[in-house]
Amino acid sequence: MRNDQRKNNQLREITIIRDFVKHPEGSVLIQAGDTKVICNASVEDRVPPFMRGQGKGWITAEYAMLPRATDQRNIRESSKGKVSGRTMEIQRLIGRALRSVVDLNKIGERTVWVDCDVIQADGGTRTASITGAFVAVVLAFGKMLDNKTINKMPVTDFLSAVSVGVLPDGTEALDLNYAEDSEAQVDMNIVMTGNGEFVEIQGTGEEATFTNDQLLKMLELASDGVQDITAVQKDVIGDAASRIGETKTKEGQEK
Amino acid sequence: MRNDQRKNNQLREITIIRDFVKHPEGSVLIQAGDTKVICNASVEDRVPPFMRGQGKGWITAEYAMLPRATDQRNIRESSKGKVSGRTMEIQRLIGRALRSVVDLNKIGERTVWVDCDVIQADGGTRTASITGAFVAVVLAFGKMLDNKTINKMPVTDFLSAVSVGVLPDGTEALDLNYAEDSEAQVDMNIVMTGNGEFVEIQGTGEEATFTNDQLLKMLELASDGVQDITAVQKDVIGDAASRIGETKTKEGQEK
Amino acid sequence: MRNDQRKNNQLREITIIRDFVKHPEGSVLIQAGDTKVICNASVEDRVPPFMRGQGKGWITAEYAMLPRATDQRNIRESSKGKVSGRTMEIQRLIGRALRSVVDLNKIGERTVWVDCDVIQADGGTRTASITGAFVAVVLAFGKMLDNKTINKMPVTDFLSAVSVGVLPDGTEALDLNYAEDSEAQVDMNIVMTGNGEFVEIQGTGEEATFTNDQLLKMLELASDGVQDITAVQKDVIGDAASRIGETKTKEGQEK
Amino acid sequence: MRNDQRKNNQLREITIIRDFVKHPEGSVLIQAGDTKVICNASVEDRVPPFMRGQGKGWITAEYAMLPRATDQRNIRESSKGKVSGRTMEIQRLIGRALRSVVDLNKIGERTVWVDCDVIQADGGTRTASITGAFVAVVLAFGKMLDNKTINKMPVTDFLSAVSVGVLPDGTEALDLNYAEDSEAQVDMNIVMTGNGEFVEIQGTGEEATFTNDQLLKMLELASDGVQDITAVQKDVIGDAASRIGETKTKEGQEK
Amino acid sequence: MRNDQRKNNQLREITIIRDFVKHPEGSVLIQAGDTKVICNASVEDRVPPFMRGQGKGWITAEYAMLPRATDQRNIRESSKGKVSGRTMEIQRLIGRALRSVVDLNKIGERTVWVDCDVIQADGGTRTASITGAFVAVVLAFGKMLDNKTINKMPVTDFLSAVSVGVLPDGTEALDLNYAEDSEAQVDMNIVMTGNGEFVEIQGTGEEATFTNDQLLKMLELASDGVQDITAVQKDVIGDAASRIGETKTKEGQEK
Amino acid sequence: MRNDQRKNNQLREITIIRDFVKHPEGSVLIQAGDTKVICNASVEDRVPPFMRGQGKGWITAEYAMLPRATDQRNIRESSKGKVSGRTMEIQRLIGRALRSVVDLNKIGERTVWVDCDVIQADGGTRTASITGAFVAVVLAFGKMLDNKTINKMPVTDFLSAVSVGVLPDGTEALDLNYAEDSEAQVDMNIVMTGNGEFVEIQGTGEEATFTNDQLLKMLELASDGVQDITAVQKDVIGDAASRIGETKTKEGQEK
Repeated sequence: MRNDQRKNNQLREITIIRDFVKHPEGSVLIQAGDTKVICNASVEDRVPPFMRGQGKGWITAEYAMLPRATDQRNIRESSKGKVSGRTMEIQRLIGRALRSVVDLNKIGERTVWVDCDVIQADGGTRTASITGAFVAVVLAFGKMLDNKTINKMPVTDFLSAVSVGVLPDGTEALDLNYAEDSEAQVDMNIVMTGNGEFVEIQGTGEEATFTNDQLLKMLELASDGVQDITAVQKDVIGDAASRIGETKTKEGQEK
Repeated sequence: MRNDQRKNNQLREITIIRDFVKHPEGSVLIQAGDTKVICNASVEDRVPPFMRGQGKGWITAEYAMLPRATDQRNIRESSKGKVSGRTMEIQRLIGRALRSVVDLNKIGERTVWVDCDVIQADGGTRTASITGAFVAVVLAFGKMLDNKTINKMPVTDFLSAVSVGVLPDGTEALDLNYAEDSEAQVDMNIVMTGNGEFVEIQGTGEEATFTNDQLLKMLELASDGVQDITAVQKDVIGDAASRIGETKTKEGQEK
Repeated sequence: MRNDQRKNNQLREITIIRDFVKHPEGSVLIQAGDTKVICNASVEDRVPPFMRGQGKGWITAEYAMLPRATDQRNIRESSKGKVSGRTMEIQRLIGRALRSVVDLNKIGERTVWVDCDVIQADGGTRTASITGAFVAVVLAFGKMLDNKTINKMPVTDFLSAVSVGVLPDGTEALDLNYAEDSEAQVDMNIVMTGNGEFVEIQGTGEEATFTNDQLLKMLELASDGVQDITAVQKDVIGDAASRIGETKTKEGQEK
Repeated sequence: MRNDQRKNNQLREITIIRDFVKHPEGSVLIQAGDTKVICNASVEDRVPPFMRGQGKGWITAEYAMLPRATDQRNIRESSKGKVSGRTMEIQRLIGRALRSVVDLNKIGERTVWVDCDVIQADGGTRTASITGAFVAVVLAFGKMLDNKTINKMPVTDFLSAVSVGVLPDGTEALDLNYAEDSEAQVDMNIVMTGNGEFVEIQGTGEEATFTNDQLLKMLELASDGVQDITAVQKDVIGDAASRIGETKTKEGQEK
Repeated sequence: MRNDQRKNNQLREITIIRDFVKHPEGSVLIQAGDTKVICNASVEDRVPPFMRGQGKGWITAEYAMLPRATDQRNIRESSKGKVSGRTMEIQRLIGRALRSVVDLNKIGERTVWVDCDVIQADGGTRTASITGAFVAVVLAFGKMLDNKTINKMPVTDFLSAVSVGVLPDGTEALDLNYAEDSEAQVDMNIVMTGNGEFVEIQGTGEEATFTNDQLLKMLELASDGVQDITAVQKDVIGDAASRIGETKTKEGQEK
Repeated sequence: MRNDQRKNNQLREITIIRDFVKHPEGSVLIQAGDTKVICNASVEDRVPPFMRGQGKGWITAEYAMLPRATDQRNIRESSKGKVSGRTMEIQRLIGRALRSVVDLNKIGERTVWVDCDVIQADGGTRTASITGAFVAVVLAFGKMLDNKTINKMPVTDFLSAVSVGVLPDGTEALDLNYAEDSEAQVDMNIVMTGNGEFVEIQGTGEEATFTNDQLLKMLELASDGVQDITAVQKDVIGDAASRIGETKTKEGQEK
């Protein structure tokens, strides 16, 4: 039995509240257990210098935690004057993951800025951020479709993320909370599409090691978990969900 | 008539939700019209170097906005690597205001960190931050009283803040929203105690000027508005509210 | 009796030496008691990016202290790699105040940079900076009038600033020196025009509070003090002083 | 056929030159094809503040490229004044990987600083860094054993890393060079121990996706490649190699 | 004839005003032609970490220019967030030069901070800074002698600096002003002691070259110039001047 | 006898390996005794903003040490977030020296970036950097001549550098190693052309002083040393060496 009475293959409850902040083109509050993240998608009518003149768009992400999202207060990164390595790793991951299911050729020379701000943390903030950010981005594209700014949903598939790990007793488990994560022998974050393909696998033995067998079991848990998360996303997105996949594959890229 | 149908002496609706984030000693979400700020108070068992060994505590504040709290996305201060002048001004103001009603001799060598994070902005974010931060700090002291960490509420009086200004038509008005603030001839922020004394007055002609008469009318509007805000605070704080003022005056300081 | 034998409504002696540094378009050394500030106004033939193409100008200010302007040596802000909150607050105040009496539409796409460098500090450095900066700016405009770069003095009124406060004995006093300022219960900086209107009021209970009555007495002291300072400015400026006000009001702004 | 005539399961030639720089406790130059990295291990007789008083040591890594290690010159990170996200990700990975095979309880309160400086880059710089850094660290421990500073080799197993990926023609390949890496559909870095367990898996669809089947084939290629790399390491290390594993498992951690 | 009618071996007029700022232990305003520098010496009762516990002191210098000390306004280094290479070079030079004539063993564990702030620049700011800083430091030591903080003047000899160069017409000249310096083929700064020994020689062909013959002529001009500057210093210092040299040589260092 | 058995006028052995890194237009590894520096010259087809539109080029240098190039590990400047004063001084010196023998009018609007990275340090890193950088730059120009990007070798003369000093026993010596440099009474770096003219002289008494006589002896040692270094450079450069000097003097500059 896990510390919160879940089974090893059981997700924490996930809730996604749409239109949480009024200004952004897409905005959600995602809650996964006690982890809460505001994900805002902002559309800007230009791209970074290195992409100008190519007729295509860009998606980039930023991630932060409120200082007291965690049990101990952390120093604000703006006060320290620099962004930590952990933050950079996470925001690079979020951006890369989102770009894997969006055909950037279909959005014109625009940048979608995705801001994931953790207001309360209890493990899995990076995977919740990806899951929530995907919904925020789809909502923003939905608004662009309504405005006729674009005429086709540029999203090729659903996208979500979940963590898996090996608990101290040696069993593999899905969706670790903070207490579990602190003690886990192995910690792995998996990003997958709605049709079950991998986008990112980041697994670390947390200064230990793991076997091929353990790896396969974790991948299976993640694969099942992602199905359930996708269902929650579909619900929240509503009508626009049916248009995901109308752009079949990313231009110039076969499978 | 104002752009949101309020009378000139009418506040926007204020709601304060307590215990909004689970980790901090004191936490509220304050909403004043469409302005929403999370105010967290964290208690740390030490003081900054310049105060060590004096047996007294310290209160300091930090303020930030989510990048898309506003109509246009702002660059994150952690990405820029420095805090703007505006942010510094506001966080210095919040800290100074809170210290004016707390007897720091009564809290031991502890620091109360107050974090005000604006998740949605529509004018008056600094005054809402002060009003909400006061409640968060009282809740944190309430918890310290419950734990017997301290034995007397160290807060001498209620504290809240509100903006006043002169609208383009020349009339004075209370609690400006963003659209009003952008056009106002004069913009003034007033911080007051529950018993009607001033803590801070910051008024600027916004590159114009104002008369003594206009000043007096604005001060009167603010004074009335603060009464109503104090009532909302009292309600949210509940039982602990009755202990505010049991520390009569700040030690070593007569009136 | 005050610590330097002044009456409560008495200013310290003010001297303004013009053309103190040879390169700037306008340059003064202002001395108010033992406070000494070099105020230089530099005219640059372009405006910041956010103002380009509007056909109007900009005024901005920077403020600094020599490390040993004060009793204890301060670390140089260039060595720390960042400007303190106090410095930012002051330089934002100086710029805002100057812009309140200059019609920026009359100076073309130019920036006036005002540098206030405190070489010796004894209280009231920010108010002396504003008073001196006003003269430096008028001298720079005078040179532009002589050169026919502009054809009308763009300054609508005189501008000066003074501090007031409540001394430990509870009496209100004008123009606090450093020793007084350190002990004052209330500290207020007032910026006013030559015709007696307010431009900025910044009053703080210095972590205490003050009454409406105290406020009114302080405003009166300030108002009288500013008259005397304006007279000193008029003297130093000489002929050009008579052209102040020939631009009646700032364009597009009625009173 | 690959662009350099290798078979899909074939490594580039690996050479490791020991004692490349004279000052460090352990130093190697590793060459993997045209990629060249200097790996220096420095032993410092203290640990970072968060680890003091625990009687155990720490291993941390830094990674950098000479500005012209690449085809186009990059701006030096010291000139930019900050370390990029990519650099942080890589140095965190190197440190974490090394700590997975070292029993930090056996080295006393010491820090091993590992510096990986890429002097010429042609793909796979992070995996070459890990492979070379492992040797440098073992050489440093060897010197500590010789000096009797420690009395047991604290390294539990061999450690090396290699990249795998999916080439544009859809085949999986081992040890991508820069040209291959730029075009690959999937890019994965695998860190493994000498006995074939995983330490880290970082795979990304590079803004595309990959199937479970592709994943399994890549893992197999990596597993075989790591065997060959381990053999090269063993050769270079010489006598000390036989002492690797004499510390069986990391203290307080069962398998 | 030079652009200001001086002969090639003629200094600009030098004036040194003592006690220019009231707070520092030693303070002068030095004017060399139109170059004006405030030199303040501050004594702090501790040394930097790397010198603690050795029973000796330290002298360090900082150098800055007011933004409009020059013909064109320069961006303030505190605003840029970093100190330029030129500034660092100069302040390292000033500190090194001063330490060459002070026996640091005689001043206890104290730091003398020397601040050279250029308020008006017309060439030769670094040499004027050294010449003025020497006087400020001697005045500070004079005060320490008066207070019996130290009992022997720790200064072994006079110290001053001057520039020399090769003008466009190929002749060598002493003490270049800004216009001369901009055009000179060679620019050399010489720091010497009162008894005619060298402390620093920094000569650069300014992207050109110079001959041994030119070098020898410049050294001779500098040597004569320094004699005259020393005389001015002696005058300003007054009584304390006679105590310079009572510490014969720096401890532990023979000649 | 010196600590490494050299005579006072004897250089350490110098080796220059060309084409050390494959990507740069010019690349060498220079070894002077145990000092080893990689010098890379990169040609970029544009100039910095302040030089645009003048039809001429620019040469700039950067210098760094690997953290463990020295006996004690140094903190990486990219981690500190700023470049030290020492580094800035050295890289300014290298750039200035190189520009003294290159006619920038002959290379078009191009920047030559010279990177000197010290991988092992044993004294004289700045002089070895200049000597090696000169060769790297000539190799880069040789490649540009081969490509017909330029049609004349723009280098007017050979350039190299060496250190001289006064040892503790009072004798002057050539090319100090680290142990000598640490103890020397005087330390001087001399940059000279192939035909024996001076480019830079930087001598410091290291907080002591030196006489005219000592200066002259050091200059003579340096002058002889530079002849030998030039011979090594000529050898490495090969054919292109004969074209050095075909641009006689730098345009618009007579001797």
